[in-house]
Amino acid sequence: MAAGKSNLSFVLKKPNEVSFEERPVPKLQSPHDVLVAVNYTGICGSDVHYWVHGAIGHFVVKDPMVLGHESAGTVVEVGSAVTSLKPGDRVALEPGYPCRRCNNCLSGKYNLCPDMVFAATPPYDGTLTGFWTAPADFCYKLPDNVSLQEGALIEPLAVAVHIVRQARVSPGQSVVVMGAGPVGLLCAAVARAFGASKVVSVDIVQSKLDFAKKFAATHTYMSQRVSAEENAKNLLKAADLPGGADVVIDASGAEPSIQTSLHVVRMGGTYVQGGMGKADITFPIMALCLKEVTARGSFRYGSGDYKLAIELVGSGKVDVKQLINGVVPFEKAEDAFKKVREGQVIKILIAGPNEKVENGGLDTTVDEKKLKEAKVNGSTGCC
Amino acid sequence: MAAGKSNLSFVLKKPNEVSFEERPVPKLQSPHDVLVAVNYTGICGSDVHYWVHGAIGHFVVKDPMVLGHESAGTVVEVGSAVTSLKPGDRVALEPGYPCRRCNNCLSGKYNLCPDMVFAATPPYDGTLTGFWTAPADFCYKLPDNVSLQEGALIEPLAVAVHIVRQARVSPGQSVVVMGAGPVGLLCAAVARAFGASKVVSVDIVQSKLDFAKKFAATHTYMSQRVSAEENAKNLLKAADLPGGADVVIDASGAEPSIQTSLHVVRMGGTYVQGGMGKADITFPIMALCLKEVTARGSFRYGSGDYKLAIELVGSGKVDVKQLINGVVPFEKAEDAFKKVREGQVIKILIAGPNEKVENGGLDTTVDEKKLKEAKVNGSTGCC
Amino acid sequence: MAAGKSNLSFVLKKPNEVSFEERPVPKLQSPHDVLVAVNYTGICGSDVHYWVHGAIGHFVVKDPMVLGHESAGTVVEVGSAVTSLKPGDRVALEPGYPCRRCNNCLSGKYNLCPDMVFAATPPYDGTLTGFWTAPADFCYKLPDNVSLQEGALIEPLAVAVHIVRQARVSPGQSVVVMGAGPVGLLCAAVARAFGASKVVSVDIVQSKLDFAKKFAATHTYMSQRVSAEENAKNLLKAADLPGGADVVIDASGAEPSIQTSLHVVRMGGTYVQGGMGKADITFPIMALCLKEVTARGSFRYGSGDYKLAIELVGSGKVDVKQLINGVVPFEKAEDAFKKVREGQVIKILIAGPNEKVENGGLDTTVDEKKLKEAKVNGSTGCC
Amino acid sequence: MAAGKSNLSFVLKKPNEVSFEERPVPKLQSPHDVLVAVNYTGICGSDVHYWVHGAIGHFVVKDPMVLGHESAGTVVEVGSAVTSLKPGDRVALEPGYPCRRCNNCLSGKYNLCPDMVFAATPPYDGTLTGFWTAPADFCYKLPDNVSLQEGALIEPLAVAVHIVRQARVSPGQSVVVMGAGPVGLLCAAVARAFGASKVVSVDIVQSKLDFAKKFAATHTYMSQRVSAEENAKNLLKAADLPGGADVVIDASGAEPSIQTSLHVVRMGGTYVQGGMGKADITFPIMALCLKEVTARGSFRYGSGDYKLAIELVGSGKVDVKQLINGVVPFEKAEDAFKKVREGQVIKILIAGPNEKVENGGLDTTVDEKKLKEAKVNGSTGCC
Repeated sequence: MAAGKSNLSFVLKKPNEVSFEERPVPKLQSPHDVLVAVNYTGICGSDVHYWVHGAIGHFVVKDPMVLGHESAGTVVEVGSAVTSLKPGDRVALEPGYPCRRCNNCLSGKYNLCPDMVFAATPPYDGTLTGFWTAPADFCYKLPDNVSLQEGALIEPLAVAVHIVRQARVSPGQSVVVMGAGPVGLLCAAVARAFGASKVVSVDIVQSKLDFAKKFAATHTYMSQRVSAEENAKNLLKAADLPGGADVVIDASGAEPSIQTSLHVVRMGGTYVQGGMGKADITFPIMALCLKEVTARGSFRYGSGDYKLAIELVGSGKVDVKQLINGVVPFEKAEDAFKKVREGQVIKILIAGPNEKVENGGLDTTVDEKKLKEAKVNGSTGCC
Repeated sequence: MAAGKSNLSFVLKKPNEVSFEERPVPKLQSPHDVLVAVNYTGICGSDVHYWVHGAIGHFVVKDPMVLGHESAGTVVEVGSAVTSLKPGDRVALEPGYPCRRCNNCLSGKYNLCPDMVFAATPPYDGTLTGFWTAPADFCYKLPDNVSLQEGALIEPLAVAVHIVRQARVSPGQSVVVMGAGPVGLLCAAVARAFGASKVVSVDIVQSKLDFAKKFAATHTYMSQRVSAEENAKNLLKAADLPGGADVVIDASGAEPSIQTSLHVVRMGGTYVQGGMGKADITFPIMALCLKEVTARGSFRYGSGDYKLAIELVGSGKVDVKQLINGVVPFEKAEDAFKKVREGQVIKILIAGPNEKVENGGLDTTVDEKKLKEAKVNGSTGCC
Repeated sequence: MAAGKSNLSFVLKKPNEVSFEERPVPKLQSPHDVLVAVNYTGICGSDVHYWVHGAIGHFVVKDPMVLGHESAGTVVEVGSAVTSLKPGDRVALEPGYPCRRCNNCLSGKYNLCPDMVFAATPPYDGTLTGFWTAPADFCYKLPDNVSLQEGALIEPLAVAVHIVRQARVSPGQSVVVMGAGPVGLLCAAVARAFGASKVVSVDIVQSKLDFAKKFAATHTYMSQRVSAEENAKNLLKAADLPGGADVVIDASGAEPSIQTSLHVVRMGGTYVQGGMGKADITFPIMALCLKEVTARGSFRYGSGDYKLAIELVGSGKVDVKQLINGVVPFEKAEDAFKKVREGQVIKILIAGPNEKVENGGLDTTVDEKKLKEAKVNGSTGCC
Repeated sequence: MAAGKSNLSFVLKKPNEVSFEERPVPKLQSPHDVLVAVNYTGICGSDVHYWVHGAIGHFVVKDPMVLGHESAGTVVEVGSAVTSLKPGDRVALEPGYPCRRCNNCLSGKYNLCPDMVFAATPPYDGTLTGFWTAPADFCYKLPDNVSLQEGALIEPLAVAVHIVRQARVSPGQSVVVMGAGPVGLLCAAVARAFGASKVVSVDIVQSKLDFAKKFAATHTYMSQRVSAEENAKNLLKAADLPGGADVVIDASGAEPSIQTSLHVVRMGGTYVQGGMGKADITFPIMALCLKEVTARGSFRYGSGDYKLAIELVGSGKVDVKQLINGVVPFEKAEDAFKKVREGQVIKILIAGPNEKVENGGLDTTVDEKKLKEAKVNGSTGCC
């Protein structure tokens, strides 16, 4: 099937040390599996974090691990039990496979499966490779009007869909999104697609707010270095939300943003923690108690999130193309990682090793000075 | 109606200074109101807090204020539009009256009404008085088999009902309750009445755990002075909950308890903050995020909570009598406050000024030394 | 306030007999009330039904009753406790006032209040009059970009909002709407505003389907005179919904439509009955049982529905102007009723007695023959 | 493993023709499977229906099929990937295995899986056999205090748990259960375990009502041959439910019961269809619409239902032993079917072919005449 094609893989050997290795093309492990040629892969903050630090929390890279998990590809082979896909189909890859047998799986919460096999999370290899096997039900066919490059953005969009669903955003609501990185931007766009009438993007970098306004937000707010309560008060005034916001999403992971979130949300409102950051922070617990706030965490994505993400792109409700600053050929993968680490891009794609890149290169018009300041934020905008 | 009867009231003039004042019997303010002779009133941690400190957070006692809000009484007069009650009816008093016109009221969340008039919350007088007027729909008739003394316990029981409802406790679940003060004990009892198969009471005083076990808990756990993560690990081992608890309720307000709560709750589980304490604490936010915990605050009580509380007592599912350590006549109100402040009792009732007390006096068998230690906990067990 | 102005009212005396009566301008009944000069009133199927039959089910017109309940007006006087409105404000009128004290009211379901006072529902007068008093919280200020004529459409739009909320429509879902009368059309539009990716309007009149397609539907289906199961099968094929629709809304009240609905909805899907019709029908109960369908009734509108309806119009998501076929002066009210009875219009407005009508008259381009056939449908499209 | 043991099976060849066949002991089909020796099997109305009619709706028995699906057994062999069970474990068997890959499976609704393999549903064999293979996660270990005979009742109890969960029964509610057959009785018991304060069992046979009262119901009502509206009125009066019941469960499948259900449920209440009967009935659709009733179907059981059923038995909240009228040896299986068909028993168990029966025989004290009348009801009490 994949005869004569490269399965070159981008392997993290230890912190800050990567290599390109030609690995054997994988074989289907079950009649329900498909083999996919990877066309494009985006870089997530977690990929960069593993590259730089070799670990995220309890997850430590001990053996060489292929990076990457935001991918779209083309089906090249299908198992005998697969009826939903055929060779040639263009698909977005959901990169984590649950056990299908635990309580969480059987009750529809497979993203909480303790035995999840997730791409580029140690010890499992990722998708920056030539060919990838996956269960057919975790490969989602792209509509004709959605490109494979857009397909690589379905993963972060599914993260945002899951966050917005955890927030139970409903039409007419006001939604404040802390952080205007990739996930924060996508949360703002998804919230609007869910009918939110007011979406306020919050960040500490004006250029990011400008982009947020153009991309999805109805309002923006430059976060201030004042107390969380005062910051919240000013935000609510600026956005004309006298009673507080119906929903607040933290897509930054930054301690001051989370604190502000609890003072921004209205009585009986909802706050969702979508961004990753410090394990323990100072938190206004009595605001949660006395306002009867509902707080929820959001972790990756689950049932229906990929399908809705694709529908949002296909219907034109979320234009992920705007987030792509450039596409690099596979051999430039490390350069792309550097660009992301330096905060110079929103989203950059790495072509698969069998994919030709025309008009490659990066759009780096973003103001570097501003973006460096943004790192104060300390957030990857990723979950 | 109330001719010749005393309307003696127990008035907080400033911190630690109270007086007894004969005030005019109030008049019905609307055809929907009733006049109630107060028979018994329990003392809440918040009453004691006002008495000692003159304020709770933003609520500051500026003018003399009658204390008390946990009361049962007897209807003596009904307004012209009242059909649900008649003179002589014995009722539990729900002591907060919402505006009925704001978004929160119209959407069934009247406990979040910003214009709530709540007894013994400045500037509004409380129920440690002879006669009290209230809208008829906030006075709940007691069944024949529920005494007026039990009726005074309906208020804290309604607090617990609201907390357990916020936690969405369902049959077969495991529930951990942090704190074995009055509200913690009642939460444990309500959780069992909701069908929880395992209810673990947690405290730092052995005598309180012993009582909790006798009263409602299936398991108890003595909280340890170790890290929250280790404390949680030990608790889960002791209670045989390898995957974590379905629900954790904090009825203590204590920082270490709240931290432990987040490490005790299972993936996808629910944590409710019911106890009041410090405004800001160190909080394991990533545990909430990565386990997709649902956290909710709980504030007072709302639609249906009083009715269910009465049903739980009437049906024998929650035996609130066990919590009553004694009844004192009205003129001994200040002594009763002292007993509560000193942590010598679970719940003590003050008879109304027109109520005779037989067999008065207090059961003070609680181990005082242990209870003093309990104050480390720093919690009133009250919301 | 309203000195020198007419309070001419359009009164139903008995079936098919109406009169115009100059009645005294009403007075505020509470400090929470406002007095509103009625500018425009739409005609609902229920108004016509009372006019023709003098009754709807148990509701029988015994005494003369003013008709009309779909109105917008201008505030002319406010009670002493009103802070949300001032004279001159343009408002949509929610025409039913609940008791605010029963279980349904206190739990946020005020539309189910058994003591509801509802305009133009016997024995209560309606809004086809000069001046109208209402509690301020049931008068909703119109944004500057929403006209008073659009304001009169907020009532039927709120009916549709309530139905779509009862259906819990969420982004990406497929929604089938039975009936393309005013409420069915508005349900289709609201479903799209809620993010439904596929909205199928179903009717038996091609011109109505054509309008539905132009107005809101992504697909239309001409219902066939075959068995409900076959009709459903054909519908699902035509709309490319092989597994059934996520949501089916019946806005027709017609027996064959309801039967088809249960065969159209997918396993685990939702069906909402929004249209009124025969009390008892032949119903495929085993389809509901075996597919675990959730069925809900929808009755009028409740908490938040008016606000969202106004937001949908103000934001341009639902263009109610398209539904207005004409505006007649007050003295032509009976003619307008006749047009509606004859099925010649989607929505016609009657100006208030103090309102001048420019460019009056009706757009009657609708194909009368087709519309007559539509009466086979037997539905008022109204709830 | 099962060497020398019988795998005798009870096979339906065509309507009313059964045979005993010695079949080969099945082999594990996956490393996640276990092999179970069947100890006891209850008879469900659906088994009897296949036996008599050879079909239920679209499900037609074309080839010989082993009957039975309400079983408990003992693990004799476990696959290499199984960690939750070991040989010798006593288990209740959940007899339907979903695909784990469709939308319904991935979203936690596996009972709605279109590719479900369900025991004794054509073309799949059932559990009236010696040995049975099943995925380990569909075999639930029984606690020490739950016998294997009780274990065979977990299946119908799980049906009732699912119905009561579909009804969202919560503490303090009033629940009316139509039908006092096995599932109706179990629904009543589960509703009480969920905290319902009033549970009304309804039937047309006094002896069944007497048993229901002894078993679980707080009230009973003998259904009358009057209009559904009058029947409902009388029921509500008899049970002192002036505003209607919070929840009505139909476990009868009988048309008059379903009609009555809609008139019994309160405004905003919930009705669940759990019993199977005629495909199409006359149904009071406007009662559903105008009261905003939520109606749900209930089909089999899903995530967590078996676990809760076992917990309810283990904790003593539901005493299923009371429902067992007798146990017969395997070779008497057809006699047992006859007893069930004749309505002479509540529940009868058939021992596995390798199980000795002591004290066999049936308790047939039920009044046969009354039970024959009961067949008017037309219901199997089974879903």
